Amino acid sequence: MKSINDYRGIVDDRIISNIYKLANRLYGKRVIHVNSTYYGGGVAEILSSLVPLMNDAGIDAGWRIIRGSNDLFSITKKFHNALQGDSINLSTIKKKLYMQANEDFSTYTHLDHDLVIIHDPQPLPLIQFYKKRQPWIWRCHIDLSHPHAELWDYLKGFILKYDSMIVSHESYKNDLPMRHYIINPAIDPLTHKNKPLNDVTIKKIINKFHIPTDKPLITQISRFDKWKDPIGVINVFKRVKKKIDCRLILCGNMASDDPEGLKIYEKVKQDAQHLIKSGDLILLTYESHILVNVLQQISRVIIQKSIREGFGLTVTEALWKQTPVVASRVGGIPLQIEHGINGFLYDPHDYDGFAEQIIELINNDELAHRIGTAGKEYVREKFLITRILIDYLELINQHLN
Amino acid sequence: MKSINDYRGIVDDRIISNIYKLANRLYGKRVIHVNSTYYGGGVAEILSSLVPLMNDAGIDAGWRIIRGSNDLFSITKKFHNALQGDSINLSTIKKKLYMQANEDFSTYTHLDHDLVIIHDPQPLPLIQFYKKRQPWIWRCHIDLSHPHAELWDYLKGFILKYDSMIVSHESYKNDLPMRHYIINPAIDPLTHKNKPLNDVTIKKIINKFHIPTDKPLITQISRFDKWKDPIGVINVFKRVKKKIDCRLILCGNMASDDPEGLKIYEKVKQDAQHLIKSGDLILLTYESHILVNVLQQISRVIIQKSIREGFGLTVTEALWKQTPVVASRVGGIPLQIEHGINGFLYDPHDYDGFAEQIIELINNDELAHRIGTAGKEYVREKFLITRILIDYLELINQHLN
Repeated sequence: MKSINDYRGIVDDRIISNIYKLANRLYGKRVIHVNSTYYGGGVAEILSSLVPLMNDAGIDAGWRIIRGSNDLFSITKKFHNALQGDSINLSTIKKKLYMQANEDFSTYTHLDHDLVIIHDPQPLPLIQFYKKRQPWIWRCHIDLSHPHAELWDYLKGFILKYDSMIVSHESYKNDLPMRHYIINPAIDPLTHKNKPLNDVTIKKIINKFHIPTDKPLITQISRFDKWKDPIGVINVFKRVKKKIDCRLILCGNMASDDPEGLKIYEKVKQDAQHLIKSGDLILLTYESHILVNVLQQISRVIIQKSIREGFGLTVTEALWKQTPVVASRVGGIPLQIEHGINGFLYDPHDYDGFAEQIIELINNDELAHRIGTAGKEYVREKFLITRILIDYLELINQHLN
Repeated sequence: MKSINDYRGIVDDRIISNIYKLANRLYGKRVIHVNSTYYGGGVAEILSSLVPLMNDAGIDAGWRIIRGSNDLFSITKKFHNALQGDSINLSTIKKKLYMQANEDFSTYTHLDHDLVIIHDPQPLPLIQFYKKRQPWIWRCHIDLSHPHAELWDYLKGFILKYDSMIVSHESYKNDLPMRHYIINPAIDPLTHKNKPLNDVTIKKIINKFHIPTDKPLITQISRFDKWKDPIGVINVFKRVKKKIDCRLILCGNMASDDPEGLKIYEKVKQDAQHLIKSGDLILLTYESHILVNVLQQISRVIIQKSIREGFGLTVTEALWKQTPVVASRVGGIPLQIEHGINGFLYDPHDYDGFAEQIIELINNDELAHRIGTAGKEYVREKFLITRILIDYLELINQHLN
């Protein structure tokens, strides 16, 4: 069972003590989280760590997932994209299915809690279907700075009923008049994706997935998605390869609900067939957290050449492994990396910048070590799950005490 | 919103009145159902109707689904098969993952309800992780008459803690000393799969899925699974085809977690390539409830040639559409069909029996109509969701009053 004390030794004892202190006016308070899925995506990952830890702190924290058909989730995926600026046909049928799923769920989900925390747009309208008798908080993990106007106006009708909202970054909020909080994402250092692995395990995983380790590895962990620019990564790699014999790994699972992802994967496969054949480029599409963990540990450099990015948790994960990261100066990445101090930032179109930096890191062990160490310490200070737990405890105290 | 009054006109007013009467000592009682999925399979379908109706009756009925990884569900699928007699390697790691998922779920699922109803094996061990302060019921939808001995002994360790259990049929129970109830499955006449459709909708669906209607249609609705014997259905069809020009439709979705299903589908496709090419055999793998509804309505005969069967809800659905059914005398099918009265039963290996009966039904409209009408009335009396609701209300009264 996940317990707060497990994080002793990873974070300072003062953090542990602070968590217990913040919880001591919250014993037995009933808090409920509602989101759309138990697995898949960053929100589910955070909740799977956060909710048990809240309980360990003495709060009665529950976790529910809304019941949604494939139709509902294809609609809310369109909402998700339109909140980030895409266009959408906001039809009556879309609104109806969205409302219906929320109303149905409300009939058998009795919310008599002290505080309700709703995650992202899928269960947002739930608030319409209850007599409000506690504070409701909307926790949105999406960048809301440039939403589709009509959709935004529609969703505001629900959002305004909430007492406050949480976004991941100052720049993500919009023109809402309510109280808002900023909670940056974070990683759990004790999951399969992030925990330290011993050499035997690493070797086993390397063998299982046939990862060659004879040459330096450069790796990008990301879905096959245009915003992650896998083609651009290959172009950077070609420049590096002219100077240093090394290999590139692109590792990303293919979301089954993402036909575009499959197209991009196929394009990468075709464009780079010679590199693949020669073994210089390795494409991995397994959904294995432990594989990601190993790749982040054994690679000489992690690249994250996103054109657009949310927070960029893959960067956080890589920094935590003490592996130097060269990344685009987009989205939440500059929050995590200070150029030249704990990693490197380049404009996503600066192929030469990326390539030269990677070459330097492979050639200069001392630099790689110094940058990697600083990266890990920065994550320890700012982007571990214990900090999210503290953020939530403070926020819950403000609402209930 | 689903309401009990919507079933007026479908079932007798005395049934409606009886439901309200049975509920009147249960107002505000808090009952919780826990199963493993919101969608996919008969249990989720029944709960999606039953739980809202319980709430409409005045009970505070909740519905939770256990959080399980793919690993967990592949283990519990093996449990499922082994409970029906397959062998299993009951390893320590399987038990550990099974227990871990239940313990994790228990940390953020606070059960302070008046009654807990646990469905099937996935959340069965939950009872280990609570201080028991209410009756717990295990509702098992699986045939438990010939379980794998070692697995059964292991699971009994949890089952014995329950106050009572529910099985779908008298013959499904095992040697357990506790109070048990029989609740036969049933269908909801108001879902997309079962509601009456107007001609315009039927035509639209026929066009959308390119269903030819120029010749009599014989249809089996079933997963591509050896126990549903699709190859046997084709053999029956070949015999029918010698006498009457007609078409066969095999309609079944392919479970993504079922590699065996894909193999059987491929085998059918290869074995029957000539029939497919000539258009006499049509294979449909869409996951569309409304398509199933239409096929059950427009087919001249529904065949269900299972070699092994649970209850056989596809038979119930077909009977409800007033379409004559010719089915195997296995599993729960004889509970639903009295041979020659409201359908026909044959030994699964009696190809000639199946074929001759289908020919007779296509040739004899009066017989088809009489049998179809009797089929529908039998379902109305015994196998509609309102009867399940009554069964549960009686059972809850027995536990709480």
